[in-house]
Amino acid sequence: MANSKYEYVRTFEQSDILLPNTWIVVRIDGRGFHKLSDRYAFEKPNDRRALDLMNVAAVEVLKDLPDLAIAYGVSDEYSFIFHPSCELFERRSAKLVTTIVSTFTAHYVYQWSNYFPDTPLQSPYLPSFDGRAVVYPTTRNLRDYMSWRQVDCHINNLYNTTFWNMVLKGGMSNTDAERELQGTVSSDKNEILFKRFGINYNNEENIYKKGSVVFRQYQLEETKAESVSKTSQDLGEEETAAPENVSKSQQEKIRKLRRKAQVVVEHVDITKDDFWEQRPWILSGKPGKLPAEV
Amino acid sequence: MANSKYEYVRTFEQSDILLPNTWIVVRIDGRGFHKLSDRYAFEKPNDRRALDLMNVAAVEVLKDLPDLAIAYGVSDEYSFIFHPSCELFERRSAKLVTTIVSTFTAHYVYQWSNYFPDTPLQSPYLPSFDGRAVVYPTTRNLRDYMSWRQVDCHINNLYNTTFWNMVLKGGMSNTDAERELQGTVSSDKNEILFKRFGINYNNEENIYKKGSVVFRQYQLEETKAESVSKTSQDLGEEETAAPENVSKSQQEKIRKLRRKAQVVVEHVDITKDDFWEQRPWILSGKPGKLPAEV
Amino acid sequence: MANSKYEYVRTFEQSDILLPNTWIVVRIDGRGFHKLSDRYAFEKPNDRRALDLMNVAAVEVLKDLPDLAIAYGVSDEYSFIFHPSCELFERRSAKLVTTIVSTFTAHYVYQWSNYFPDTPLQSPYLPSFDGRAVVYPTTRNLRDYMSWRQVDCHINNLYNTTFWNMVLKGGMSNTDAERELQGTVSSDKNEILFKRFGINYNNEENIYKKGSVVFRQYQLEETKAESVSKTSQDLGEEETAAPENVSKSQQEKIRKLRRKAQVVVEHVDITKDDFWEQRPWILSGKPGKLPAEV
Amino acid sequence: MANSKYEYVRTFEQSDILLPNTWIVVRIDGRGFHKLSDRYAFEKPNDRRALDLMNVAAVEVLKDLPDLAIAYGVSDEYSFIFHPSCELFERRSAKLVTTIVSTFTAHYVYQWSNYFPDTPLQSPYLPSFDGRAVVYPTTRNLRDYMSWRQVDCHINNLYNTTFWNMVLKGGMSNTDAERELQGTVSSDKNEILFKRFGINYNNEENIYKKGSVVFRQYQLEETKAESVSKTSQDLGEEETAAPENVSKSQQEKIRKLRRKAQVVVEHVDITKDDFWEQRPWILSGKPGKLPAEV
Repeated sequence: MANSKYEYVRTFEQSDILLPNTWIVVRIDGRGFHKLSDRYAFEKPNDRRALDLMNVAAVEVLKDLPDLAIAYGVSDEYSFIFHPSCELFERRSAKLVTTIVSTFTAHYVYQWSNYFPDTPLQSPYLPSFDGRAVVYPTTRNLRDYMSWRQVDCHINNLYNTTFWNMVLKGGMSNTDAERELQGTVSSDKNEILFKRFGINYNNEENIYKKGSVVFRQYQLEETKAESVSKTSQDLGEEETAAPENVSKSQQEKIRKLRRKAQVVVEHVDITKDDFWEQRPWILSGKPGKLPAEV
Repeated sequence: MANSKYEYVRTFEQSDILLPNTWIVVRIDGRGFHKLSDRYAFEKPNDRRALDLMNVAAVEVLKDLPDLAIAYGVSDEYSFIFHPSCELFERRSAKLVTTIVSTFTAHYVYQWSNYFPDTPLQSPYLPSFDGRAVVYPTTRNLRDYMSWRQVDCHINNLYNTTFWNMVLKGGMSNTDAERELQGTVSSDKNEILFKRFGINYNNEENIYKKGSVVFRQYQLEETKAESVSKTSQDLGEEETAAPENVSKSQQEKIRKLRRKAQVVVEHVDITKDDFWEQRPWILSGKPGKLPAEV
Repeated sequence: MANSKYEYVRTFEQSDILLPNTWIVVRIDGRGFHKLSDRYAFEKPNDRRALDLMNVAAVEVLKDLPDLAIAYGVSDEYSFIFHPSCELFERRSAKLVTTIVSTFTAHYVYQWSNYFPDTPLQSPYLPSFDGRAVVYPTTRNLRDYMSWRQVDCHINNLYNTTFWNMVLKGGMSNTDAERELQGTVSSDKNEILFKRFGINYNNEENIYKKGSVVFRQYQLEETKAESVSKTSQDLGEEETAAPENVSKSQQEKIRKLRRKAQVVVEHVDITKDDFWEQRPWILSGKPGKLPAEV
Repeated sequence: MANSKYEYVRTFEQSDILLPNTWIVVRIDGRGFHKLSDRYAFEKPNDRRALDLMNVAAVEVLKDLPDLAIAYGVSDEYSFIFHPSCELFERRSAKLVTTIVSTFTAHYVYQWSNYFPDTPLQSPYLPSFDGRAVVYPTTRNLRDYMSWRQVDCHINNLYNTTFWNMVLKGGMSNTDAERELQGTVSSDKNEILFKRFGINYNNEENIYKKGSVVFRQYQLEETKAESVSKTSQDLGEEETAAPENVSKSQQEKIRKLRRKAQVVVEHVDITKDDFWEQRPWILSGKPGKLPAEV
């Protein structure tokens, strides 16, 4: 029995293939996490358990999708990056985004009880995430995107740390704290923290100040002085090979190499050149050397 | 501290707003469910627990998103339908698709242990789903889409029921069964089932033959003979009001009314007019009458 | 000699196929026609030669593309409409839009000297047009689009007629006339025209008040009272046949029938039902009866 | 009088903004030029008048749109290139493509009689062009696109030159010539030309062998040996400044500078580095030095 009478409806699907040879950024965000964090009593200004849960889910996504080059997470959002040479799912936008969103959600829900043993999830109040894909033509644009998110992390964390200290330790109302912070600059907030609460913001934990960077670990490259300036200058440089030049079997081989690498989470500065120069495999898309076994 | 130096990267996001006044179909599919069903020992040809789990997740999605008009599920796929008047998330495609995929995944993982108490999920082998949005301009196109999926359900289920009986009860190898079924039509399969295994396909359960239809329950309308032909003839007719004619507050009011209705799962024929005429609220987008309380 | 080394660049072309079963509107606009009308001394408020030139170019476009159902022009803009069943150029947006823009431009430039014999075109000050495609899901949406343009025509023409009479006959400066008209409604402008210049706006030529409607001429259908209300009510009704149902050879046959019909220009009301009921071939996409030969 | 009742139809227009920081290629092609060249008796294999007419139209397009960096033409097609920093028409695809197609068509029709004084255009057989936009993320991709078109020019011209000599001078039928050429490589065709017709393909005119390159002329830069290799190596390097960094007034200033430069047509090799190194303003997007006035 054929299904031909109705099958014409398939022609209504429209192509959503992302431009070749561009960086693909899939950013996901918690849906209604303000309410969710109230319901499950997340700690303020940062709940370490919630961040660790985000990170473990992100690590699983990177393990599941060897095509991913790097990811960056802060608060209830995570950005996952595919290299310009990525051909996964023929670069179909919806397929890439939903695969990441769904895999992330599955691990987040599955691992919840390991991180919040005392506050089990209660249906229908389950965590969920939305997402979108954006493409960037050059490495400079990609690095600026990453810097944008990390600078945002810093701005928000300094604000939140100050705000919640004023409220929780200083006994101020939310409204009063908000009003006092309006129009302040970074140094003002640093001063409030130090003078009123004896807190040196620089000593706060890096996971809060820098967010979380997730990537495959290979042997670090040494950074030479001259290479720094060179890289800095050539940042726009792209992998110029035509997409066709990497065969399907080569791609599969690269995927296997990537699966062997350990996926790690670090809380480091990614706005500077150092991070990228020491880990050239992230921007090059070519697997590095596995750490020597002893 | 401003973030202006990097903020330009936001301009790279491209609009993905779906055409107004069209039906939005979001179809999600299990990723690698062939492997998954092996790992967790799903029963063949149909695993009732797995279908019930799909359905409970779909019901939660409809409860969470009152804008949804109806959903249809078969095997490891589900189609969720928004009415042409839907303005949720400004009709942004990625936002609509990822919200559904993520909410569905969360409930599927969360409820797993209720349906598979003896085969708990094991990381990293977690279920996940991908998805995409397609829009349809007319009610005829939408109904043809729904019929396409239900006819597909029937074709696949008849095949699978025959195949697995030949293998499991008939002791044939997969290859032999496949070869014998090649080129057969429905009546051939019905005969195999009946003659060899004493199975009358018509007596199989509707959940397997018809799939699952999920919608809000209001009082059914009576179907009159004349109305049948009329509806049949006017099927292309659309809600012609301009999108602006429904104010935001009216939309919110409609959402509240919808939340009051019970979300039900039925296993019925949706290729004929009857289903749609008795439940005019699905195609009209206007809430029906709640069942009278006794 | 192969070209394979560079041919990969073709993969960067992205699909721009318009949604099936929707009305396609291609609207073109004169580029910088304010300057152009000054340079070639167009008459104010309307230059009949310029409008006739627009119309002759539009007629040639309809003759060249039998897939076009109707067109509507006002001032230096023209809207060309393809029926939902149109499969021309596989419905590729750029191909449809550029073909219309280029064909229109070619005839406009070619015919210029017939309409402006005393003011020949001077390079590089040549007329040109830009364009875009928009799709509409229902006939109601399409007719509202057409009404939008015709109501716009009326609003602008009443304003311009009043303004230029105040300036050219009334001796006012542009600024003074503009200031006086600010905030006026239709009846105010009608009164200014009548009291100061003895002009009854209703007696102005229809080409200025109604714009120009271009379509293929067949035998008009009689409009019955009941049919009026019916059509009015069923306006959202679509051609519901699947695109596949019309074969390529049938399409070619329809094209030939259409080429036989005369393309006419009329200046009539298209906001009411009458126009569309008398010419059912426009919305149905099926050629009417050719006028009886005597 | 307001137009609000119908104005909602504007919301159906969908965004078509091209990805920022990418090269925009608008390629236009003659519609049905095979027939057209027969009707107006174009010479075979190349009609110098037709190519000169294409080129003069392209030059006018570059003069009209200072944002254009370069154009390349062969046969009845032309590619126009905008720099990644281009913000013209907010990078709306349809607007960019139709403006180029229409301006090109206007000049082509207007200038026809200067190049074909003995075969005037006859309505409705007017030349027209279709077009499309494609974006390329890196300079390497852009240069590969340009090389693709120029290599195609060479392949086609060698074939056509051989074919038409076999037919016109050799007295062969089209079918016989086609059959003999099937499967031949370049050297075969060179030999046929030389042995049978005494033609050294290398001595053919460059306009036929290389196509036409159109750009703004500034003082050429000297090419140093080391710079050659450097450029070659850094080809993927992009203009990395954020789009915002160039203000609107700066853009206008750059446009004025560009208008002062002469637009020239050359028939040179653009697949090698030399062309691009000597004219760095094309890839940099920054105007060069105007030739010293004597």
